Amino acid sequence: MSIKITILGNASAKPTAHAHPSSQVVNVNEQYFLVDAGEGTQRQMSRLGISPLKLRAIFISHLHGDHLYGLFPLLSTLGLYGRRTPLRIYAPRPFGEMLEGFMRLFEQDLPYTPEWVEVDTTKHQMIFSNDTTEVWSLPLRHRVLTAGYLFRQKEPQLNVDKFAIERYSLSVQQIVAAKRGEDITLDSGEVIPNERLTYLPYPAKAYAYCSDTNYSARLAKLCQGVDIIYHEATYAAAERRLARERGHSATVDAANVALKAEAKRLLIGHFSSRYKDLQPLLAECREIFPATDIAEEGATFEI
Amino acid sequence: MSIKITILGNASAKPTAHAHPSSQVVNVNEQYFLVDAGEGTQRQMSRLGISPLKLRAIFISHLHGDHLYGLFPLLSTLGLYGRRTPLRIYAPRPFGEMLEGFMRLFEQDLPYTPEWVEVDTTKHQMIFSNDTTEVWSLPLRHRVLTAGYLFRQKEPQLNVDKFAIERYSLSVQQIVAAKRGEDITLDSGEVIPNERLTYLPYPAKAYAYCSDTNYSARLAKLCQGVDIIYHEATYAAAERRLARERGHSATVDAANVALKAEAKRLLIGHFSSRYKDLQPLLAECREIFPATDIAEEGATFEI
Repeated sequence: MSIKITILGNASAKPTAHAHPSSQVVNVNEQYFLVDAGEGTQRQMSRLGISPLKLRAIFISHLHGDHLYGLFPLLSTLGLYGRRTPLRIYAPRPFGEMLEGFMRLFEQDLPYTPEWVEVDTTKHQMIFSNDTTEVWSLPLRHRVLTAGYLFRQKEPQLNVDKFAIERYSLSVQQIVAAKRGEDITLDSGEVIPNERLTYLPYPAKAYAYCSDTNYSARLAKLCQGVDIIYHEATYAAAERRLARERGHSATVDAANVALKAEAKRLLIGHFSSRYKDLQPLLAECREIFPATDIAEEGATFEI
Repeated sequence: MSIKITILGNASAKPTAHAHPSSQVVNVNEQYFLVDAGEGTQRQMSRLGISPLKLRAIFISHLHGDHLYGLFPLLSTLGLYGRRTPLRIYAPRPFGEMLEGFMRLFEQDLPYTPEWVEVDTTKHQMIFSNDTTEVWSLPLRHRVLTAGYLFRQKEPQLNVDKFAIERYSLSVQQIVAAKRGEDITLDSGEVIPNERLTYLPYPAKAYAYCSDTNYSARLAKLCQGVDIIYHEATYAAAERRLARERGHSATVDAANVALKAEAKRLLIGHFSSRYKDLQPLLAECREIFPATDIAEEGATFEI
């Protein structure tokens, strides 16, 4: 049970010949989620061997083209591929209006239904949940309504240690109770605390996607202890003021959020096209938060 | 003075990892026109060294996504690059509604105005004209309103042969009259026919873009004598029936149009993703029309 993040694109709005705009596939326990969808998303998926038919849901941070223009072609292609299952798209207002226009003008006969779920970008709340996975919205500070997304594995069910079962001759009922987290009272009257009987098969992991945004101390708090945080770093430290004016972050902002969040690892992306060499940006982050890497296009990061 | 056609993409609707959907840059006498704009158009331009800022006008054949999804990101980018000149987009109905939605929902502050010019897909008429260039609509037979585009250099102004000027001691007025195509009466009363005084500096060239369409004998007539015709060949000859049902052409249809049009050269494209090897498609065309080539992505064809 793992979380795998595959970077389809890490560029900001001005397109370049070598980099795609924002888009990632987040695979939580073999469920595939798309996060943002810049132009070229479907071709990048295809190049990286990820079938668009596997998508369980789509999360859009905000409605700027460099995070969105690849969505509509992808929705069309899913129709060509014969998808039947409704597809939920989590996005802020007024995405519904865009989707309505798309359905009316481009795709009146899609064999499945894209369903918009409005994300309230002012709130940190659980917006998706199933047996193994939760997704939470993260309020971000950009020029338009923008949300980040926090992917969390649910705590797995406790496993009961097979040596404990033998040692205490546990009955089936006692094993089931131990799995629920209960302490067990033996026939002798002795009480065995649950932690001596059970263990977590794997630790629950978490990944936070934060783009586009100004520096936010609140965001760092909401991402407390995540295994990986992806945070935009559009500009170098020297352009921090410009970054703030434009609703973006500089390298040092990203690193400070990761530090404050006590994240295990930081990935940076959404670089301005002005930076041909990204190593100085990386170095600026590592000075504050050593466990930083560039979210390189085509790379997969696993937790 | 030439026409150069650069192929940005030649694939049909189902995207593949190795091919982009329909889009071409047609350069007539150093004026750049974009013809169709599948997803990835702006990145392909950038990779092939063609600045989007050079575009004089855009021609869209029809409103299917594989010919159109790259347009809106390109329009956004032109805004980022600071274009100020209005940009005409020639397209069938209801493109105006799409453009209105795009402007309202995505780009309220574009520094230039994209202007829709409606193309009547039932008529063959001149829709663009300047000193050196004409563009004509070509009615095509597809599932939705669809037009091809015929790019024509205008007949250049006649040059007056410098030996003739000497031989007949032509005055400035007589030279100007000869340039206009008039015969010249010498002082002796002798009349010199214009064709003995003048020549065309270069022959006017023509390029026809025909996609998507069923076979059309009328189309062949309208493309009479063109230097290059690009004609879709979505399917192999064996799938001719399927092609007809879907509003497309098979290889043999494309070759027969080129033959009937007495075109000098045929380029085929818009291949179905089912064909991994395009050589058999090419061979089928060449049996009917030997001067056929594949409109390979990235290639430039010059007239």
